[in-house]
Amino acid sequence: MPARRFAFLGPAGSFAHAAARQLAEPGTELAGYGSVAQVIDAVHDDAADAAVVPLESSVEGSVPATLDALTTERPLVILAETFLPVVFDLVGRPDARIDAVRSLATHPHAEAQVRRYLLDTLPEAELTPVGSTAAGGQAVAAGRFDAAVVPAGCAELYGLQVLAHDIADRPGAITRFVLLGRPQPAPQPTGNDRTTLVAYLRQNHAGALLQLLTEFASRGVNLTRIESRPTKGQLGEYCFSIDCEGHLADARIADALTALHRVCSAVRYLGSYPRRDGSQSALPLGARDADFAAASAWLAGLREHGTA
Amino acid sequence: MPARRFAFLGPAGSFAHAAARQLAEPGTELAGYGSVAQVIDAVHDDAADAAVVPLESSVEGSVPATLDALTTERPLVILAETFLPVVFDLVGRPDARIDAVRSLATHPHAEAQVRRYLLDTLPEAELTPVGSTAAGGQAVAAGRFDAAVVPAGCAELYGLQVLAHDIADRPGAITRFVLLGRPQPAPQPTGNDRTTLVAYLRQNHAGALLQLLTEFASRGVNLTRIESRPTKGQLGEYCFSIDCEGHLADARIADALTALHRVCSAVRYLGSYPRRDGSQSALPLGARDADFAAASAWLAGLREHGTA
Amino acid sequence: MPARRFAFLGPAGSFAHAAARQLAEPGTELAGYGSVAQVIDAVHDDAADAAVVPLESSVEGSVPATLDALTTERPLVILAETFLPVVFDLVGRPDARIDAVRSLATHPHAEAQVRRYLLDTLPEAELTPVGSTAAGGQAVAAGRFDAAVVPAGCAELYGLQVLAHDIADRPGAITRFVLLGRPQPAPQPTGNDRTTLVAYLRQNHAGALLQLLTEFASRGVNLTRIESRPTKGQLGEYCFSIDCEGHLADARIADALTALHRVCSAVRYLGSYPRRDGSQSALPLGARDADFAAASAWLAGLREHGTA
Amino acid sequence: MPARRFAFLGPAGSFAHAAARQLAEPGTELAGYGSVAQVIDAVHDDAADAAVVPLESSVEGSVPATLDALTTERPLVILAETFLPVVFDLVGRPDARIDAVRSLATHPHAEAQVRRYLLDTLPEAELTPVGSTAAGGQAVAAGRFDAAVVPAGCAELYGLQVLAHDIADRPGAITRFVLLGRPQPAPQPTGNDRTTLVAYLRQNHAGALLQLLTEFASRGVNLTRIESRPTKGQLGEYCFSIDCEGHLADARIADALTALHRVCSAVRYLGSYPRRDGSQSALPLGARDADFAAASAWLAGLREHGTA
Repeated sequence: MPARRFAFLGPAGSFAHAAARQLAEPGTELAGYGSVAQVIDAVHDDAADAAVVPLESSVEGSVPATLDALTTERPLVILAETFLPVVFDLVGRPDARIDAVRSLATHPHAEAQVRRYLLDTLPEAELTPVGSTAAGGQAVAAGRFDAAVVPAGCAELYGLQVLAHDIADRPGAITRFVLLGRPQPAPQPTGNDRTTLVAYLRQNHAGALLQLLTEFASRGVNLTRIESRPTKGQLGEYCFSIDCEGHLADARIADALTALHRVCSAVRYLGSYPRRDGSQSALPLGARDADFAAASAWLAGLREHGTA
Repeated sequence: MPARRFAFLGPAGSFAHAAARQLAEPGTELAGYGSVAQVIDAVHDDAADAAVVPLESSVEGSVPATLDALTTERPLVILAETFLPVVFDLVGRPDARIDAVRSLATHPHAEAQVRRYLLDTLPEAELTPVGSTAAGGQAVAAGRFDAAVVPAGCAELYGLQVLAHDIADRPGAITRFVLLGRPQPAPQPTGNDRTTLVAYLRQNHAGALLQLLTEFASRGVNLTRIESRPTKGQLGEYCFSIDCEGHLADARIADALTALHRVCSAVRYLGSYPRRDGSQSALPLGARDADFAAASAWLAGLREHGTA
Repeated sequence: MPARRFAFLGPAGSFAHAAARQLAEPGTELAGYGSVAQVIDAVHDDAADAAVVPLESSVEGSVPATLDALTTERPLVILAETFLPVVFDLVGRPDARIDAVRSLATHPHAEAQVRRYLLDTLPEAELTPVGSTAAGGQAVAAGRFDAAVVPAGCAELYGLQVLAHDIADRPGAITRFVLLGRPQPAPQPTGNDRTTLVAYLRQNHAGALLQLLTEFASRGVNLTRIESRPTKGQLGEYCFSIDCEGHLADARIADALTALHRVCSAVRYLGSYPRRDGSQSALPLGARDADFAAASAWLAGLREHGTA
Repeated sequence: MPARRFAFLGPAGSFAHAAARQLAEPGTELAGYGSVAQVIDAVHDDAADAAVVPLESSVEGSVPATLDALTTERPLVILAETFLPVVFDLVGRPDARIDAVRSLATHPHAEAQVRRYLLDTLPEAELTPVGSTAAGGQAVAAGRFDAAVVPAGCAELYGLQVLAHDIADRPGAITRFVLLGRPQPAPQPTGNDRTTLVAYLRQNHAGALLQLLTEFASRGVNLTRIESRPTKGQLGEYCFSIDCEGHLADARIADALTALHRVCSAVRYLGSYPRRDGSQSALPLGARDADFAAASAWLAGLREHGTA
């Protein structure tokens, strides 16, 4: 992956920034943008080699803007993934005191995760939504608010003081970020990979989803995420966003994908890349590449000689 | 449904307010609250008889706050549903001119749905996020912003002028609202009903989801929505939020629910209520109440006499 | 099982006779008949309390005459089963010598199982088919043939000499016999039981059989035998003769049977009785009687209160 | 199919002889043998180019001797099939009278199909089993019995008189015969073909059979026959003898066979050949050769470019 410039949802200090640092090799330039759409466009427009965006969080579920960018825009593929603990701090200027906080800035998603803390600790503070958590930190530094709820690590960046650390109502949250690039061959398989795709069903009923799942299960392909998404058409029409274990270079994945291509109205492949959490499930009998190769050789014999 | 006070996500003029008017019978009092959590709490605390909340939108998919309220809080059940077209207007004060708009307020979700319109029409206007679309209208009336993106119908309420009607980038959006009440027996079946539930799988793999879907399909129960949701535990653990055709009083639904109760780690029933879109699919052979009754009678004969 | 008279496929000395002795309690009278049809009729006509007939053999598969008697005649149920080793002896009169055997009698089914032995040992002997293996022994005793192929143990009965013991080409064969009675409640469950039934599919395709198997698999019911049988209508129309683990008194069996009753064109229950080979497979989660009872109680709560 | 000598289960006048005449091209020599095993051996030993044997009958189901010959002997493949009405005549010498028949010869299988007729019409006649129905006709001609039950058409062959025509208790029976040859490439596909195979399951439970059926159903392959057979090992171990619509040259059949090769312990291919009854079912979406080709091309593009 010789990418040299990664776009992320900025400003500096955001969770996406931290994720980008995890994903970047030495020498990679990191560039913050104001919205997920702008981050994606930077890749499409060759202003960046890849984009770092959140795909799902353990609290909120998948990130609609990212899933939509992967399906409704021009093609992009996932090149890598990383997992980031989501830790929020309450920060103020160096001389701030928590009992003197009257105004507070943060992003609505962050607010949702620290609501109970704020109700208990700062019930009187006026809350103003801002476009990103890190922007809240910038605004505090600029004197516009007394405090902000920001990603851990953000305080140093803006010369702020941590008034309270790790204030999430439900600690232990994790967000999964992915690195998106223009279409290109997948990185080499590692033996512990993940493949992401979106499948559009021909019919919106339980039977069609059963059929889709059967194509994976019958080839021993384990799913690690499946989510229905509206197809932007109308309520009641869904596609399924899916992560599965394995790599496009694995025979079982290739076989499952071609089966989906036949039975679905459309399939969008979104990349194969090394998996960064957990490890490959044990394969059932018949699911290894060698099993597929042996079956193909057997079939060729039948066609040529009428016997194995 | 003798409920007399409905809580909704206010302020007046919000989409939820319009939905509440659709769901209310004459004489029902409608009371706006500041957050979904407060709306829900009003029901739990007996401050309201029922709550009107959005469940899913044709653009954004399901509403996480509502799904979470249904599963992580004290039990509530869905008593009714309604579908509301989502139409956004750009509004200003009576003397406003669209080419003079410099400041703009709206809720981030609304902003996401009119982004292209705003970029094309008001590229220079400064956008400030507010807590609800209707709150944006209030703020314009109070002179704090030049314009706001609000639900259609909101302008009259606040004495504002419609500068542009139906400005969504993707017209035709619909949101489904539901009426939530404290647990109570379901309304009588109508022959065209829907049942909502959440199923928690014992294992997080394709086979477990296959099993769940099979319990519906084998009884001729059609699904109209299925969504995976994180279980708030950790990434990779999902439950499934499901709508299906039929009523708890129907034998096929009762039979499917008891099967799920046996094979899932948990099942949360969320109500049976009249369906307001589309109509009941034709039932396959063997799925009517009479078929279940005949099978039970047959079994009783076998147990008593050893023959049918 | 207070049956006092068992009919079997005679004459004395047949395999069915040996099986009848295994199945009979002290004091039971055993009566040989000339054909499976006569054995069955004896039960229908109250001439016997039960009939001992072969159901399947490890060499020939199931016994069509028995399966047909169970489905096309008036109802009977299986009350018990037993397994009998199939050992053939070559027998002659007390003064016989194997190298002097010129004529030989046996039943065609027995001949099929000792063909290679006869070709190797008595290539010149003239073989005459007779109606049963034991009848061959009787005919040898009467001086009509030099030798016969008979069930082990038959020689003593007819005052004959064993010229060669256990001459089957494939040793180790076993036949499963069942005890058939007029319809009556099943014997008490023992915890290791078997249930036999025949299911007629509405449609003759793979999907219908998949559906049938799914009804068993989804309730954790293990099948120990499944065989397609022509329905006596025309080629291409099949029913399925099935043995499964469990007893009609078990909730999972009752639930599976009622499901089959709904989705099949017809189901014929043929009895629940103690299993005499192997032991009950471990039940999957959710398949015990207690799980079914808990699910029913849960459902009753939902219907009455709207919550669990 | 340039075969010039067909072996059949004789003697002349048998049903197999009639089937052989249907399957033979002009100039083909037909040779009768004394047992199915000898017929099969004639092909293995190059004494015949192909063998005509019965595979299944609408009354008795499949023919165990044939199914066994196909699986436990050296490989053979099915080259063609034909369907023959099974019509039995009661025959005697030219001067015979039906009310003077005292002795009767026939094969046990034929006797089973005319039992009720004989009980009603000739209750006093002594019945002697013979090795084949046509052999019974020969024996009558030789003066050893008064009458025989033989295939229709057999009387002329042996100079006999038809005493009663079409005497089967259940009229309309049909037997399916197949032409077996040494392994060779399948005849060209015709668009209405059948493929025969035997699948051995890794595990003897419902789940394994479900998996097997799923491999057919998921590719739109319709089954026209499925039968369990003991594996000659022990009771409770089964293989499945299967006929399906389609030809080895069809992509969906090739794909299903390779899948079975992976998930079964063994698969025995027994030939693809033109179907002589009924016609090809409509294929579901995604099951045509073109769909498989399009899916493969799509996959190749993904692997090379990362996008379709």
